[in-house]
Amino acid sequence: LDSGDDDALRALVSPLHPADVADLFGAIPVDARAPLADALGELLNAEVIAELDDYVREDVLEALSPGEVAEVVTQLDTDDAVAVIEDLEADEQRAVLRALAPEDRADIEAALNYPEESAGRLMQRDLVAVTENMSVGAVIERIRASIDPATDFWEIFVVDIAGRPVGTMRLSWLLTAPPDLMVGDVMKREQTLIPVAMDQEEVALQFQKYALISAAVVDAWGKLVGVITVDDVVHIIQAEAGEDALKLSGAGDGDINEPVVESYKARVRWLAANLGTAMISSSVIALFEPTIEKLVTLAALTPIVASIGGNAGTQTMAVAVRAIATKQLTDSNTRRTIWREVRVAMLNGLTIAALLGLGVGILFNSVNLGGVIAAAALFNIMVAGLAGVLVPLALTRLRTDPAVASSIFVTMTTDTMGFLGFLGLAALVGVANLQ
Amino acid sequence: LDSGDDDALRALVSPLHPADVADLFGAIPVDARAPLADALGELLNAEVIAELDDYVREDVLEALSPGEVAEVVTQLDTDDAVAVIEDLEADEQRAVLRALAPEDRADIEAALNYPEESAGRLMQRDLVAVTENMSVGAVIERIRASIDPATDFWEIFVVDIAGRPVGTMRLSWLLTAPPDLMVGDVMKREQTLIPVAMDQEEVALQFQKYALISAAVVDAWGKLVGVITVDDVVHIIQAEAGEDALKLSGAGDGDINEPVVESYKARVRWLAANLGTAMISSSVIALFEPTIEKLVTLAALTPIVASIGGNAGTQTMAVAVRAIATKQLTDSNTRRTIWREVRVAMLNGLTIAALLGLGVGILFNSVNLGGVIAAAALFNIMVAGLAGVLVPLALTRLRTDPAVASSIFVTMTTDTMGFLGFLGLAALVGVANLQ
Repeated sequence: LDSGDDDALRALVSPLHPADVADLFGAIPVDARAPLADALGELLNAEVIAELDDYVREDVLEALSPGEVAEVVTQLDTDDAVAVIEDLEADEQRAVLRALAPEDRADIEAALNYPEESAGRLMQRDLVAVTENMSVGAVIERIRASIDPATDFWEIFVVDIAGRPVGTMRLSWLLTAPPDLMVGDVMKREQTLIPVAMDQEEVALQFQKYALISAAVVDAWGKLVGVITVDDVVHIIQAEAGEDALKLSGAGDGDINEPVVESYKARVRWLAANLGTAMISSSVIALFEPTIEKLVTLAALTPIVASIGGNAGTQTMAVAVRAIATKQLTDSNTRRTIWREVRVAMLNGLTIAALLGLGVGILFNSVNLGGVIAAAALFNIMVAGLAGVLVPLALTRLRTDPAVASSIFVTMTTDTMGFLGFLGLAALVGVANLQ
Repeated sequence: LDSGDDDALRALVSPLHPADVADLFGAIPVDARAPLADALGELLNAEVIAELDDYVREDVLEALSPGEVAEVVTQLDTDDAVAVIEDLEADEQRAVLRALAPEDRADIEAALNYPEESAGRLMQRDLVAVTENMSVGAVIERIRASIDPATDFWEIFVVDIAGRPVGTMRLSWLLTAPPDLMVGDVMKREQTLIPVAMDQEEVALQFQKYALISAAVVDAWGKLVGVITVDDVVHIIQAEAGEDALKLSGAGDGDINEPVVESYKARVRWLAANLGTAMISSSVIALFEPTIEKLVTLAALTPIVASIGGNAGTQTMAVAVRAIATKQLTDSNTRRTIWREVRVAMLNGLTIAALLGLGVGILFNSVNLGGVIAAAALFNIMVAGLAGVLVPLALTRLRTDPAVASSIFVTMTTDTMGFLGFLGLAALVGVANLQ
């Protein structure tokens, strides 16, 4: 494709939606990205750039001068423009900002002053605000007279004299309400206000919980400063929810476009931590070497008990982390949830212990060995159930993201308790009685 | 709270948003749900019921008669009504449907005829459709004259004589365009059409990718039959993305309101499968019992190699599963992604192998033992990197959800290869040379 002529390429790409063109950049090899950007020329418009994956965008923007980036940024809404600019390196960022028109620059600099991943960076500053004492008809006239048709908006905001939001009006109400009614009589007074400093994850939860299409953003004094629309939040909802699996595994960002060295750095830390905990757990086995020496079969059976516990713990932990992230698990039902997990663990433990005990008992022709491994498996699955819910809860109390660090503590607990439970019990019963 | 008087309770609950009232039901113990429902009376309205968690809703609806449920359903949009009814048991479902007004009943039965989790069940049948040759002013008149102000809509759909969608118009364009322009000159012709049979996960991906607020749903003949709005999709985006962590762990639904026995059934299957694979992997250890007998230290070191591989495999797998779910990993970049993961695994493997080899070498004062465990760890991390990406890809080719089954295959591979690599190499080098 790229080796052919640019005109043919442009003819192929031009009917595509910007999001599809952006996907195309993600699908091709890294070194083909700059040439494709050059070949597309005009077709590589602001919308395509806004849709690019963060890492892919870096590759593409490298091919553009600060002036060209500024051109792109000018065509975007504040929130998309900020998303493009915030990932640039400091000196490029300054160069692009200098190349912008003063009012665009002021808007973007204001947004960049808000903390990363806050509502202030997500919001759009252009919005329609009216007062309560206007009539519906007058509002429609004002929109028609003053708003650029290219601006997308879904709700208008009603504010008091101080600029504080007092209600919202969906455009469908504007269209269906009698024109002589006052805005104050049509608008909805209950609304979800988003403080400008709110974390984007929390913003996403609010949108999801209250099924919002757009929401007013207010500053510390309660003044309306911007609007966030659901299309800016959808990718956050998706990303934040999908992050759990990545965080639980210690895979960092988990973006397949992330440079190899970055992925290495993110992952090796967790592997090293895991190496540390694995050595600690395994030292438990070392304590029982005299026992294993007498019955070397124990060496083959020990990892089974640990593995079952690890798996049970991971299940409970995934449930707990999810429930904490979606705020289903709160102080009011902590006790009930722990008790619930204990009961699930009890049922799981009894089933698995029976299967394992029976299998090992028959295979090794030893009732005692079957009994010991069954008891150890039941014990470890109970430990796993408790650790799987207590560790994420404890990390949440310590204001740590439970998705990030739970895994390592839960696995260490189930490994250690699996080894200790099985080998300890075997030593207690006595190797001679197990054969 | 519940032991007090109902009036005080109602006064407390009445200012809350329906979504918050629904959360309240989730937070209280199971046996307090029916009494709370009784006490709230009128406050337990249709919106609250639509917001309830599926499992909590079952508890609450049990307290209502089919007639009362029908009353609730009548007040809901088709999609929410279907969500409430589809979870009822067959005979209750029939009773509620009988109690409905004929036209509501027909709509809901039509929706229930579409497969579960399809676009047909998510869509709302009330929508505003106009033809190209109407003027913007005439459309506004028609909306004002014919649409119930309580109906929420964000876009209107333009159809041809056969009822097939030809374009969409945002309400903001209706308000900002000159009233004498024709709809055909203002509308956007490119639009994302959702086939009525499309799976809801795919619907959610479309909404997210194209940042849609609403989208037309078409039947097999291309006729407009309904509309899906983003607020109906947001919870699916969230649920589908969050499911990965739960599926990877085999935790089933992972809802903390799920009855204990259901959770047990979902989880025990995976624990039993894990038990099976753990026994298979451990049988590798049994093969090397003579070697372990001579150097029992090996028994304590073996699980470390397996654990490191398991962790590395889980990382790669989480990344691959996520990339497949979000369609970032496709046929066009499969090779590149595999190669990328091999490089990350190589870097991780070299680092961890060096740390582990050095540690073991010093601790046991044996260069050879350090060398053997380092080589085995490097080998297993490389295996883990390959398995972590190849297993999810293979499962996708086999049209199986990679999130569900990957974990068990990857762990089995890394356990087996960890045991085999370390013990095999140790046997090869010879125990005498390791001490």
